[in-house]
Amino acid sequence: MNFIAQLAASQQRRDSLLCVGLDPDPQRFPEPWRGDSQRIYDFCARIVDATKDLACCFKPQIAYFAAHGAEDQLERLMAHLRRVAPDVPVILDAKRGDIGATAEQYAREAFERYQADAVTLSPYMGFDSIEPYLRYDGKGLFLLCRTSNPGGADLQALPLASGVLLYEQVATLAAGAWNRSARLGLVVGATWPEDIARVRRVAPTLPLLIPGVGAQGGDAQAAVRSAAGGPVVVNSSRAILYASAAADFAPAAREAARVTRDLLAQSRR
Amino acid sequence: MNFIAQLAASQQRRDSLLCVGLDPDPQRFPEPWRGDSQRIYDFCARIVDATKDLACCFKPQIAYFAAHGAEDQLERLMAHLRRVAPDVPVILDAKRGDIGATAEQYAREAFERYQADAVTLSPYMGFDSIEPYLRYDGKGLFLLCRTSNPGGADLQALPLASGVLLYEQVATLAAGAWNRSARLGLVVGATWPEDIARVRRVAPTLPLLIPGVGAQGGDAQAAVRSAAGGPVVVNSSRAILYASAAADFAPAAREAARVTRDLLAQSRR
Repeated sequence: MNFIAQLAASQQRRDSLLCVGLDPDPQRFPEPWRGDSQRIYDFCARIVDATKDLACCFKPQIAYFAAHGAEDQLERLMAHLRRVAPDVPVILDAKRGDIGATAEQYAREAFERYQADAVTLSPYMGFDSIEPYLRYDGKGLFLLCRTSNPGGADLQALPLASGVLLYEQVATLAAGAWNRSARLGLVVGATWPEDIARVRRVAPTLPLLIPGVGAQGGDAQAAVRSAAGGPVVVNSSRAILYASAAADFAPAAREAARVTRDLLAQSRR
Repeated sequence: MNFIAQLAASQQRRDSLLCVGLDPDPQRFPEPWRGDSQRIYDFCARIVDATKDLACCFKPQIAYFAAHGAEDQLERLMAHLRRVAPDVPVILDAKRGDIGATAEQYAREAFERYQADAVTLSPYMGFDSIEPYLRYDGKGLFLLCRTSNPGGADLQALPLASGVLLYEQVATLAAGAWNRSARLGLVVGATWPEDIARVRRVAPTLPLLIPGVGAQGGDAQAAVRSAAGGPVVVNSSRAILYASAAADFAPAAREAARVTRDLLAQSRR
């Protein structure tokens, strides 16, 4: 089953559009784990266990592991995810992008070492920088399109001579010439609902991964309505991971995930 | 001393514009190391020892380490570089790019964990995705501008409504509004000498990191002439690392580095 089908099945089974982002920051762990980078796996595994029937997918952010030299804990976490939630796809948020021979190495890292089901990627280096990832059967790729940060507009919202904005051109390529094996999706920030609608117009069937709700302030329901007509996954990280800074962090994360899941499900009806 | 000054001093001392790229592929190691990912450090350290008086800087490509779970060997290699060539700056080729909180983690990975002197970065997410790296005093940042791969043109060479090409806009931002602390440089592929000249026109003083000579087929001398007027670093990886597939790989790498160094030095005169 390829990533797109896997995601659809998981979403239907859980009535959920919610992706739980795993951005573990030891400074925000509950006592007595606070500040302990050896507890990254333990913290994330508890979050996974508490939310695996609510999240349609998980998205570990590799930077939070790499900053602490915790690649081994990420490997263990990926194995834990496959064990306790084998039908929940995992998007490795890595945003690498490089030319041919180097992209092959990054694809190997994501799909062989970590056995992710999908990755995020920057489109700036063009099609041949994403092609090595597509050689892995069934794996999904989310290309950065219109990101949720304020500086996202610096380049992405530049108008092209052809009359469209740069991010619309990325969406057009991802929906057309680049999408030979129908496993591409796009990252579009929840902070820009009107831009989500513009992306949806040129990419009517592509899965949209929407970060930026919760801690980043985006309106989740507006984002989902703007993306109507095709698959949508809405990511929330900090608002779930750090719903409580105390020993009840896991049940608190579950409750935050449940509320967000229900909110998202309503906005689809 | 900041990265730009460090690079200039190293270039002058060695009369060298050559950056030796460390892209270790175990399949190309000499016997009896061939295929052995435990020998990545040994192979790279031998290359460093053989070329450290010829290379003005080194550029480890992190993908080649990450694909093999060899982050520990990269840490050891960085320590070796600081020990045997303390005046040679090291550019960590990582091409990460992410929003604020995540970019902080990546910056921590590059500058605290690996203690790199500079990194490569994608500009697609805008200024606030590079700003966390600039908080590290003295460190350099090379933004992808016009990359050496064929697909580089897919987005980078799109004409904007303002009349310039996207990569020229990146160069303009890097030379101006984004360069508050004067530690930015640009990555421009050797395969496009005319594009290097266009970048140089809008970014007259920025260091240009030019990959794509040697194995990728770019003309090194044409590239250096196109970049005249400001600092230039020309990267060669495979043509040096794999100059010989036999036990003499280190002296062969030295000879390949010497020839390239001399060629580059001539084109500056």
